[in-house]
Amino acid sequence: MAFNMNDIIYKKRQGNELTSEEIEYFVKGYTDSSIPDYQASALLMAIFFRGLSRKEIFTLTNAMRYSGDTVDLSPISGIKVDKHSSGGVGDKTTLIVAPIAASCGIPIAKMSGRGLGFTGGTVDKMESIPGFRTSLEAEEFLNQVNRIGMAVIGQTAHITPADKKLYALRDVTSTVDNFGLIASSIMSKKLAAGSDAIVLDVKCGQGAFMENLDDATILANLMVDIGTDAKRKTVAVITDMNQPLGNAVGNSLEVIEAIETLKGNGPDDITELAKRLAGVMIFVGGKASSKEEGYAMAADALSSGRALEKLKEFIEAQGGNPEVVNDYSLFPQASLMETVVSEKDGFVKDIKARNIGIASQKTGAGRETKEDPLDLSAGIYLSKKIGSAVKKGEVLCTLYGNDKAKLENGKAEAASAFEISDEPVEPPVLIKKIIGE
Amino acid sequence: MAFNMNDIIYKKRQGNELTSEEIEYFVKGYTDSSIPDYQASALLMAIFFRGLSRKEIFTLTNAMRYSGDTVDLSPISGIKVDKHSSGGVGDKTTLIVAPIAASCGIPIAKMSGRGLGFTGGTVDKMESIPGFRTSLEAEEFLNQVNRIGMAVIGQTAHITPADKKLYALRDVTSTVDNFGLIASSIMSKKLAAGSDAIVLDVKCGQGAFMENLDDATILANLMVDIGTDAKRKTVAVITDMNQPLGNAVGNSLEVIEAIETLKGNGPDDITELAKRLAGVMIFVGGKASSKEEGYAMAADALSSGRALEKLKEFIEAQGGNPEVVNDYSLFPQASLMETVVSEKDGFVKDIKARNIGIASQKTGAGRETKEDPLDLSAGIYLSKKIGSAVKKGEVLCTLYGNDKAKLENGKAEAASAFEISDEPVEPPVLIKKIIGE
Repeated sequence: MAFNMNDIIYKKRQGNELTSEEIEYFVKGYTDSSIPDYQASALLMAIFFRGLSRKEIFTLTNAMRYSGDTVDLSPISGIKVDKHSSGGVGDKTTLIVAPIAASCGIPIAKMSGRGLGFTGGTVDKMESIPGFRTSLEAEEFLNQVNRIGMAVIGQTAHITPADKKLYALRDVTSTVDNFGLIASSIMSKKLAAGSDAIVLDVKCGQGAFMENLDDATILANLMVDIGTDAKRKTVAVITDMNQPLGNAVGNSLEVIEAIETLKGNGPDDITELAKRLAGVMIFVGGKASSKEEGYAMAADALSSGRALEKLKEFIEAQGGNPEVVNDYSLFPQASLMETVVSEKDGFVKDIKARNIGIASQKTGAGRETKEDPLDLSAGIYLSKKIGSAVKKGEVLCTLYGNDKAKLENGKAEAASAFEISDEPVEPPVLIKKIIGE
Repeated sequence: MAFNMNDIIYKKRQGNELTSEEIEYFVKGYTDSSIPDYQASALLMAIFFRGLSRKEIFTLTNAMRYSGDTVDLSPISGIKVDKHSSGGVGDKTTLIVAPIAASCGIPIAKMSGRGLGFTGGTVDKMESIPGFRTSLEAEEFLNQVNRIGMAVIGQTAHITPADKKLYALRDVTSTVDNFGLIASSIMSKKLAAGSDAIVLDVKCGQGAFMENLDDATILANLMVDIGTDAKRKTVAVITDMNQPLGNAVGNSLEVIEAIETLKGNGPDDITELAKRLAGVMIFVGGKASSKEEGYAMAADALSSGRALEKLKEFIEAQGGNPEVVNDYSLFPQASLMETVVSEKDGFVKDIKARNIGIASQKTGAGRETKEDPLDLSAGIYLSKKIGSAVKKGEVLCTLYGNDKAKLENGKAEAASAFEISDEPVEPPVLIKKIIGE
């Protein structure tokens, strides 16, 4: 059957449901450039106003999922579990939950991204470990998971090209913030990556894409629905992102914090989140009969040191120096530091994650365009979190880097993130909701 | 001030009013291609859903009006009056009202378009007169109006390029049918064409862009508002287009019908419409103190033969043979004809203008793409109109042309336009509403 893109735009504009064939025609045609940008952006804006049904979202997700290569993880035995975070500041959970889950028998065969803008990426963080390689051949990748239980690589260029092209268009046509489009974009990549079960960490708060719990719940439900329709066990955990996660922001700083967490010395928030997420992964991976049992297994993997040993094994398998776990001087070192101090006595009321993310980017830890080089030693360490008591002149955070002007820029931005209250402040609840299974 | 197109799309998407500077930035940037099609189409779709305020519409109209050349009619003395029809099947009113108004002292300096699809264009119709030239130099054009009171030419390429480019984009992104965008498109061209007063014939019915009176009223009000804001006397006449106007459809057939009307032998509907429109033109042009007085003057110009004389003068001035007025054999002749006859006794209930327009196009009288050649002799003559009594076997319409296959195609289409009822049918009211002044 022949389709006409103008008719498809009209149909959606009028509020009608598109057929699977129409959605597939659009995604295929846009990917191969037979449908021009201007028709795609008109359809995206019509979708923004009219929304997508569950069936439309699933079809769109699948059309993007199969628009390029998909990963076949069947040579790996067991139930492969993937974890996705919707992006946050200071979010190094992959480096903690992957070794925990792997040490509990869950095969982790994960593709991760690089950072852009004010959010970091796991691939960049891992590359701060001397010698670490994030690109492996497919066979090497699969063999490593079968051998030691985990491997993490950068995304290949041929995964979900339709999503990449559509996302780039949405980014310049004010059509990013639509639930159905966001959910299908994330899930198309997760499904193409081939795991059997998916745990989603949906960030919620000022520093996240979803600013409130209602929105985060809508998005989480949509993604769980897609996973369910695709016959993948899918659980979404909605977590707070009103302040950065943990205390460290920046590539090597975050890896060090992940190691400290695996040693049992991590900040409370990240330690708790890691156990909860890993517990859900262990549960959906079939190694525990409930999320609670999974949580207990995760806690044991941490306290016994097994998870830390798994991280060392993983670093060594991918060419990195496992001695970084014991000697942090092996990481790239910052030659300069600056501190932000409190201007009064009080309690930390707010640490805007977005501003800390931007400040970290300014120190050299993040990139504005894909081509920018990174200073892997740069970043920010928070000495206080929301709820902390603070004295006038006491350090709120420390900025690290190798460029004085950049640090000065970052310092002003970081200072603007803090709000100090005269009254005591309750720390935020980290785990807000769990959806699915 | 620097603008960002993505922010402008977002602002409109959220339902906010754009500033004049933002609209001007968009129109200028889109015209010079510094703003890409995909951002323009996203904005147009957001406008479709959110609408435009009166101020936004006026700014958009002016930005398009001044995007290219504008016509300076100041060398012509008097109040120049333009007439616009929103396009219909069999609409040859320009060829009748222009000579009537000119013979009553209203200077007519008009640019007209060519036909596309199933609607005809005045320029094509005039070119069926042997020798007639529709492209005049600017000075020649102005001098002719000063000398004989009227001139009609084809549109120059440099008028409202922004409107041309935006219309082409709307046409392929399902963003044509928005009142503000339609009104600003029409009025930008009318204002750029330089007349002091504007009479709009807004067609309403199955064969028109506005299918019902409510929609036609909204559009008419928006256009009158734009004219008022631009300090041009503007009147809109909403007229019926549920059946073709008059009996003739096709280029030379319509010119002959216009001549017959000027001789006093025209069909009732077109004669009445011409007097009403010309009456309004005479009124807004300041030669009558009311529309009613203008109507009486128009009727006198017709019955006295002065309007017919003005047409001959006009044809001669633009190089055409004025003898066509007396000898219709001077027009291009059709060698073939076909008739559609009634299959039963009854009354004509419907003659779908759109189907008659398409049938006429199929005979060779219209073009599908801008490059198609025309058969100026081809077209359709209606022997019956809505309300006419008809006997089984009696001719409903006759198709003319020079290609047997094309006539056969046209015949089937024309037959589908007619609906015959057993019960008597009231003919439609032609003039539905007058808005403005």
